[in-house]
Amino acid sequence: MRFRKSFLWLSAVSIFLASAAHAGQSLKKPDLMPWPAQIQMTGGEYRLDSSFVVKIAGHAPARLYSYADRMLRRLSGKTGLFFSQDYLSPDSAVKSPSMEIRADRPGKLKLNEDESYKLDVTPSGIMLTAKTDIGAMRGIETFLQLVQGDSAGYFVPGVRINDYPRFPWRGLMIDASRHFMPLDVIERNIDGMAAVKLNVLHWHLSDDQGFRAESQTYPLLTRLGSDGLFYTQREIKEVIKYAADRGIRVVPEFDMPAHSTSWFVGYPQYASEPGPYSVERKFGIFNPVFNPTSDNTYKFLDGFFKEMCRLFPDEYMDIGGDENNGKQWNANPQIQSFMRKHKIADDRALQTYFENRLIPILTKYHKKVVGWEEILSGQLPKTAIIQSWRGAQSLQEAARKGFRALLSKGFYVDHYMPASFYYLNDPLPDSIGLTAQQKKLVIGGEACMWSEFISPENIDSRIWPRTAAIAERLWSQDSINNVADMYRRLDGISLELESLGMTQMKNQDMMLRRLSAGLNPAPLANLVNVVVPVELYMRARTGRYTSYCPLTRVVDAAVPDPEIARHFSNMVDHLVSGGAVSGEELASIRARLLAWKSNDAALENLIASSPVLREIEPVSKRLTDAASSGLEAVDRIQRGETADTSWVNSKLSGLKQDARPAGEVGLVIISPIEKLVRFAGSR
Amino acid sequence: MRFRKSFLWLSAVSIFLASAAHAGQSLKKPDLMPWPAQIQMTGGEYRLDSSFVVKIAGHAPARLYSYADRMLRRLSGKTGLFFSQDYLSPDSAVKSPSMEIRADRPGKLKLNEDESYKLDVTPSGIMLTAKTDIGAMRGIETFLQLVQGDSAGYFVPGVRINDYPRFPWRGLMIDASRHFMPLDVIERNIDGMAAVKLNVLHWHLSDDQGFRAESQTYPLLTRLGSDGLFYTQREIKEVIKYAADRGIRVVPEFDMPAHSTSWFVGYPQYASEPGPYSVERKFGIFNPVFNPTSDNTYKFLDGFFKEMCRLFPDEYMDIGGDENNGKQWNANPQIQSFMRKHKIADDRALQTYFENRLIPILTKYHKKVVGWEEILSGQLPKTAIIQSWRGAQSLQEAARKGFRALLSKGFYVDHYMPASFYYLNDPLPDSIGLTAQQKKLVIGGEACMWSEFISPENIDSRIWPRTAAIAERLWSQDSINNVADMYRRLDGISLELESLGMTQMKNQDMMLRRLSAGLNPAPLANLVNVVVPVELYMRARTGRYTSYCPLTRVVDAAVPDPEIARHFSNMVDHLVSGGAVSGEELASIRARLLAWKSNDAALENLIASSPVLREIEPVSKRLTDAASSGLEAVDRIQRGETADTSWVNSKLSGLKQDARPAGEVGLVIISPIEKLVRFAGSR
Repeated sequence: MRFRKSFLWLSAVSIFLASAAHAGQSLKKPDLMPWPAQIQMTGGEYRLDSSFVVKIAGHAPARLYSYADRMLRRLSGKTGLFFSQDYLSPDSAVKSPSMEIRADRPGKLKLNEDESYKLDVTPSGIMLTAKTDIGAMRGIETFLQLVQGDSAGYFVPGVRINDYPRFPWRGLMIDASRHFMPLDVIERNIDGMAAVKLNVLHWHLSDDQGFRAESQTYPLLTRLGSDGLFYTQREIKEVIKYAADRGIRVVPEFDMPAHSTSWFVGYPQYASEPGPYSVERKFGIFNPVFNPTSDNTYKFLDGFFKEMCRLFPDEYMDIGGDENNGKQWNANPQIQSFMRKHKIADDRALQTYFENRLIPILTKYHKKVVGWEEILSGQLPKTAIIQSWRGAQSLQEAARKGFRALLSKGFYVDHYMPASFYYLNDPLPDSIGLTAQQKKLVIGGEACMWSEFISPENIDSRIWPRTAAIAERLWSQDSINNVADMYRRLDGISLELESLGMTQMKNQDMMLRRLSAGLNPAPLANLVNVVVPVELYMRARTGRYTSYCPLTRVVDAAVPDPEIARHFSNMVDHLVSGGAVSGEELASIRARLLAWKSNDAALENLIASSPVLREIEPVSKRLTDAASSGLEAVDRIQRGETADTSWVNSKLSGLKQDARPAGEVGLVIISPIEKLVRFAGSR
Repeated sequence: MRFRKSFLWLSAVSIFLASAAHAGQSLKKPDLMPWPAQIQMTGGEYRLDSSFVVKIAGHAPARLYSYADRMLRRLSGKTGLFFSQDYLSPDSAVKSPSMEIRADRPGKLKLNEDESYKLDVTPSGIMLTAKTDIGAMRGIETFLQLVQGDSAGYFVPGVRINDYPRFPWRGLMIDASRHFMPLDVIERNIDGMAAVKLNVLHWHLSDDQGFRAESQTYPLLTRLGSDGLFYTQREIKEVIKYAADRGIRVVPEFDMPAHSTSWFVGYPQYASEPGPYSVERKFGIFNPVFNPTSDNTYKFLDGFFKEMCRLFPDEYMDIGGDENNGKQWNANPQIQSFMRKHKIADDRALQTYFENRLIPILTKYHKKVVGWEEILSGQLPKTAIIQSWRGAQSLQEAARKGFRALLSKGFYVDHYMPASFYYLNDPLPDSIGLTAQQKKLVIGGEACMWSEFISPENIDSRIWPRTAAIAERLWSQDSINNVADMYRRLDGISLELESLGMTQMKNQDMMLRRLSAGLNPAPLANLVNVVVPVELYMRARTGRYTSYCPLTRVVDAAVPDPEIARHFSNMVDHLVSGGAVSGEELASIRARLLAWKSNDAALENLIASSPVLREIEPVSKRLTDAASSGLEAVDRIQRGETADTSWVNSKLSGLKQDARPAGEVGLVIISPIEKLVRFAGSR
């Protein structure tokens, strides 16, 4: 099966290249993401104007009409065209549509639902067909990404697309416990998910730092465990509908038996120590854990899940299961005696015992379970899904044992890794040691947005645009893995996401303005464009973070994958790769370095009025130093000199010093400058 | 009374100047807005660090604790300080507070509630005292505006402030009918209102284009009249609480008898023509109007207001009353015969009849009424408040007749006027012909945000920062009216508002990025920085706007009062005012003009890929032309030449051509360039 798809893909590439040979400007490769399974540029283009009219055909539910309405408004917003068509409804009689969207049936919000679509754009019209309305939604997003402008106006290039996902479970997990994320954050990110064809919102709703879902059965969960920051059941229903209207499932997670302090603030009797408990303000692994030896615990959880299984319609319920340190269990003589009595060997076995009593409750309420890899045991029902987060080996272990599995290891977007890192993290690499049958059990993956160090203000900049690269990994064929091409398209999709409401760019601007205390933020922006946050564990290790700490500093505004630094790095790579180097290229490199070298003086003025910037002063000085080294190297390269070894070594040693972080950010352009220095010494 | 206040103010200025004579850097005039009634810089400063701790004293309700919590988070966000204090509660035992906030009693959300406060900052601590917690909230905003940074860290300058509002009703009207504004838009703007001490949200909830408040008694109002875009009663309660937590009243407006098409989509039987009706998509004055001659109309309205008067706790209900064209009344023989029978002379009298039957219903439900100036008649109860919008004379007429009155004429922020225009619009100018007693009836005013041409994306840029200038007009003493000083402070308050969530800056950036289709938006930004939208009526007159039109074009991204154009104009004014002109100043003017002159070439590249920009191409070319004229003038001024009259006339005539708008925007720097040209010819 995979061979066949790859083969088709290669054919499509050939067709694409063949067409491109005759190409006008409209035949440039479109900036689609995720890249479709099969695409063929058919020549010509459909020209958009205000007479553009859409017709919905087939058997589509109301939500597809709304989706198409939003498509019209997005198209109108992008092009400024005043479309005459107002709101689509089943009653609208459209005689000669510009675009027909046809869905055979309403899609079901469940695993393995058909999301395929076919999109045909010709100069005379656009036809989008799908088995389900969810497939049609996926196709609408592709269509919107195809729209381009030229001097004659807006158009959609002629194209034939046949598209379907590689994996059926393509998720984004949002941790709303460690920092609460208001409804508008969740909803706009659902729009972002739909734009890149993700289909599962994994909503992490409880943890030590807060219980975020209203329970009417156990009102103290939020009354005492949330600081007043939680979703009401009405809001939860709104989110579920919002997601469903975009073909996205919502799988809630109630993490247990550990990560559960917030439960015990109102209900200490179900913990393994008597308490009292208060909402955890720090981050890490904490001791509070459900008492698995008490029948009351299961009565309580039965009541809880009875309510939640009704509230959340998805067939899956996520029970968490991660990072139980067992300390409360070990310290409790009653629990220890229970373990001896029931021949439960260790904490791990006791957690399995807990899950063996918990899962039947969920089964009773018609739910299958998902959990982190720690829940993997021989006694799990085969309907369970294992989410691998510590190492891909657990993914393989799950599949070998016959469980379906999701990859999250390597998809943690709270880690400040570049998009390329996530992009190349294939759930099923060629090297994987699984049989064809086992491979089928690897059903996808999830980007994980843990929220220790994020606020509603900067969450989007941690999710986007990198999660679009993850979305492509999970939707597109495995052969689509060219990093440079991914980055080329990522910058475009980031703008599209911004237009949909994501704040990854504009909130960075805002944060830099705030940090600049009314002065021109340009020198600060220059620095932020070449730094990245230190590794996550270095921030965690400071021990000073709490859920009410400021998340407004340079490290919080800096993004993991700054575009300007990336472009600089690409220029340097091109230079040192030994190809012909134009004077223009060297001039661009030099211009960047010159600007960086002189930036510190301007930034010092800002720092004098804005003490919050004091912490990054050393990094600013290191940028001057590193840029100076880079300039010296460029001078030598331009003069055609070969630098001597002692110069090279002295510069490299200086650059090593310049790489040291301060204020929890470090320069990301050290490595390309090192390349320049080495290149100056090697010719 | 006004003399006394002015006298005190003068004393405060004297004290301020006296202190400033001994000033260190911390004694610069703080960027407060609205400016307090009395302020005295007392020297020294309170230094902020992470040990900063707040104590609430007196008799404060829970909402003041929450307000102080948010103050701490905002302070921490601005300074990056990791405060040890987490959440404030009545249980928190704070021994030696850095700041004490004391309120004698909870404030009531009603007209004329005490909002005064006293703020004392000394090197050893901060004391904020107020009669009500609402006054304390006003003081907290002043305190936050005082925080500054220097090379030693953050501090609050030593100051003694005694502050209270000039007018008790300081409102912002938001029209959520013509374009629906989601909950987060309303809530963040309530935060913005609190930041500048506004105290009434006037929520325009129904109009021809949509009915936005859920009625359980008459569910068809939103089911058929809202396109699904409305606030549920739960959401309305949330907004009311959100506002109350910030000391802000919510006064809903249900506009009648006209502006009521959306009511009749579900309930045509109460209109003056049989219908059927559909939600209005265009803007303007439409014919649908309640049938005032039918008892059923009043039964319906009784049922409606019974529900709404319970939902909205404020003592006032706004019944609109504006722009009834009477056409349906004139066309309906039954209504005409009713008028003859009851000796009702004309439409105006018939509307008075309608109001005379409506107001007792509201009285029964314990509400007083507010309405637009058209409701003014001799038969109104004296508790009614008249909102003047067509001309200030109606304000005077209302006061002379013994009614309380609000000024909105001159506060329409949907008109693209500069902040100075609104700022100088005093409800009680010296020239006003009212007695002292009548003047007391002028209780304030409201900024009006009508929404024909705004979307959730750009609404903040129409409200802010200009509404901060209106807020100062309504809070501060009338002697505070220096436009230059207002602008100096406005730029700072705009950043503070952005930090609170307002999107006036960041969404402009976003819109320019979208308009630039992935290319560098800088040339577009250069143009947008010197254009303003054409007058509102010119947009309306095109007749092409509907509630689903794109509001994403350059005109929608342009702001009414662009900062760069204003600074340029100030530089030119200084130059031509004949004072000594430095070479540096001339160089700054020249640099701006040079950049503008060459901008068109770069913008052309953008336009070639982004056809939505095509419409502003003529304005871009006119910028080049106007800048060239300005440069020629500067050359002559620098050379000490006097230009001859024919050159001056020819340039002025060219500039007149350059002032023509295109794409609904026009250059705002024509007038300063004309000044340069005239100056070149006058020396």
